[in-house]
Amino acid sequence: MRFIKACLGEVVDTTPVWLMRQAGRYLPEYQELRRQADFWTICHTPGLAALATLQPMERYDLDAAIIFSDILIPVEAMGVPVEFEPAPRLPAPIRTREQAMALRTPDPATATGFVLEAMAKVRARLDQGKALIGFAGAPFTVVAYMVEGEGARDFIQLKTLMYRDPLLIEDLLARVSAFTAAYLSAQIDAGANAVQLFDSWAGILSPEDYRHFALPWARQVVRQARRLGVPVIYFMNGVGGVAEVLSEVGADVIGVDHRVSLADAIRRIGPNTVVQGNLDPGVLLGPVGLVRARAFEVVQAGMAAKGHIFNLGHGVHKDTPVESVGVLVEAVHESGRRGQ
Amino acid sequence: MRFIKACLGEVVDTTPVWLMRQAGRYLPEYQELRRQADFWTICHTPGLAALATLQPMERYDLDAAIIFSDILIPVEAMGVPVEFEPAPRLPAPIRTREQAMALRTPDPATATGFVLEAMAKVRARLDQGKALIGFAGAPFTVVAYMVEGEGARDFIQLKTLMYRDPLLIEDLLARVSAFTAAYLSAQIDAGANAVQLFDSWAGILSPEDYRHFALPWARQVVRQARRLGVPVIYFMNGVGGVAEVLSEVGADVIGVDHRVSLADAIRRIGPNTVVQGNLDPGVLLGPVGLVRARAFEVVQAGMAAKGHIFNLGHGVHKDTPVESVGVLVEAVHESGRRGQ
Repeated sequence: MRFIKACLGEVVDTTPVWLMRQAGRYLPEYQELRRQADFWTICHTPGLAALATLQPMERYDLDAAIIFSDILIPVEAMGVPVEFEPAPRLPAPIRTREQAMALRTPDPATATGFVLEAMAKVRARLDQGKALIGFAGAPFTVVAYMVEGEGARDFIQLKTLMYRDPLLIEDLLARVSAFTAAYLSAQIDAGANAVQLFDSWAGILSPEDYRHFALPWARQVVRQARRLGVPVIYFMNGVGGVAEVLSEVGADVIGVDHRVSLADAIRRIGPNTVVQGNLDPGVLLGPVGLVRARAFEVVQAGMAAKGHIFNLGHGVHKDTPVESVGVLVEAVHESGRRGQ
Repeated sequence: MRFIKACLGEVVDTTPVWLMRQAGRYLPEYQELRRQADFWTICHTPGLAALATLQPMERYDLDAAIIFSDILIPVEAMGVPVEFEPAPRLPAPIRTREQAMALRTPDPATATGFVLEAMAKVRARLDQGKALIGFAGAPFTVVAYMVEGEGARDFIQLKTLMYRDPLLIEDLLARVSAFTAAYLSAQIDAGANAVQLFDSWAGILSPEDYRHFALPWARQVVRQARRLGVPVIYFMNGVGGVAEVLSEVGADVIGVDHRVSLADAIRRIGPNTVVQGNLDPGVLLGPVGLVRARAFEVVQAGMAAKGHIFNLGHGVHKDTPVESVGVLVEAVHESGRRGQ
């Protein structure tokens, strides 16, 4: 698999490409699916999750599928109710020791069997040359959600607890790390060829707090997942302030958002790390000529790294024209070949 | 004035300090004022804006006051209605040439006379050793608001236009730059001892787009304001990806958010620039011992720069205990002296 080779820094015929949120609302076939079932129902129904996962693979020559799921699935599995209105919200956020102690660390095979079943279905139907990526939220990001109860700009509930009761936050991080490692392990057993850890909210932290509350826990989960023999990708939204320490996470691949230039990121992360990224998803709203030109630039910049997997710096936006994604995937493969 | 000396890189007896949103909802006296008038009314009433500006100056030994106002005041002055519900929203965002051409570039003395009057009142009542800071949004940030109609996470309307009709965006940037320069000039005439340009939304851009759509316009406004003989501060929220190019803005002082370490920022921006920042505002929600310790670290890191003005990396949060702000201001002045 081209994607797996690139993750390991091996020579590939061209730059592999997949896109965060490649299965989603910009696709008319996904919109159609959503008329039959809501987002959370699709996540919980193996047949539908597998269908959503495969939709972009049928339309585009993407090198990897990522299982259609959500980083809040493990939160629910640990016993915390999740609601959608339509943004996700936890009606009972975790802010006390009693609540922390009541969290479950269940067997992923039973608590998240529907995800594993979806993965097995996808792996069985996916072309052998294409990879299946499993994923989970990184411990800090999951704990941020658990404590705050929703995505927020300043995460003030979380920070208040982080500074007033760091031991409680560390206890939560330890519990979430344990379940996350087990959950990723189960995904690998179910057929994942690689796993990605999303530290979507770690970018709200100062570098000092990042090194304390995010990095060590991500590293622990990465270490456990890597023992199972598949490449591990670590994506943090907002690497600009901490690029120099990211190699300490120990992942095979470091995802890079679009608020840094890929050339700078490679230099700052270090030349011995494979990078993934980092086109601004907004570019896909522009004319296809611009999509091709910017894709070419990112592919060229990626050549300076030990290895490069093309992706966006963040998820595909719902207003993205479906044709532009096709143009992008072709442009990446073509630019990657030209550069060889 | 200690603050102005520090802006110019001159020797000061201790590190000066002011805080973004130091006048605001965490203060009970401001809450009291808000029971009499809403935010937008306070902005438009010179006596009330002056009162709000001076409230934190009476409570704390801050080195500078910043005029109580909003970056949307120039948007309104240019003829675009602004509503609050309670977040600011433009009912008719600017997305066409016709709308752009209909924008006014009025005389700030008439269109924003209430701000200038508030500034004169504050300057007359402020201790002579304390500076008064005027401000405006940087052109990119103001245009982002005008086009999007509200603060947003991905600014997809803006990016669509940026990529599909860059000339329209540049036309808007030119118009906003012209008015912003005139507006800052009027503030300096009215008594501002320094001005700050807030590029609050520039952090959503890739470095390539930042260099095209944000930096040159900020530089143009900075250059015009500096000709009037007062120091200019440029604050961008999210410097992590573009620190190396920030000196090109040409400001006397570069503001730094808290998602980078101040030591790294100084190294990356370059040693010949005065920096302002960058304590995480969330730390003020923690115990006062932590506030003191983190303030000390930031002050120490600032010693590596040509000059340092202490500030938060973002605005004071509304849940901040009033006592903690007092502890912070004292800790900065004490740490700054100890380090001399």
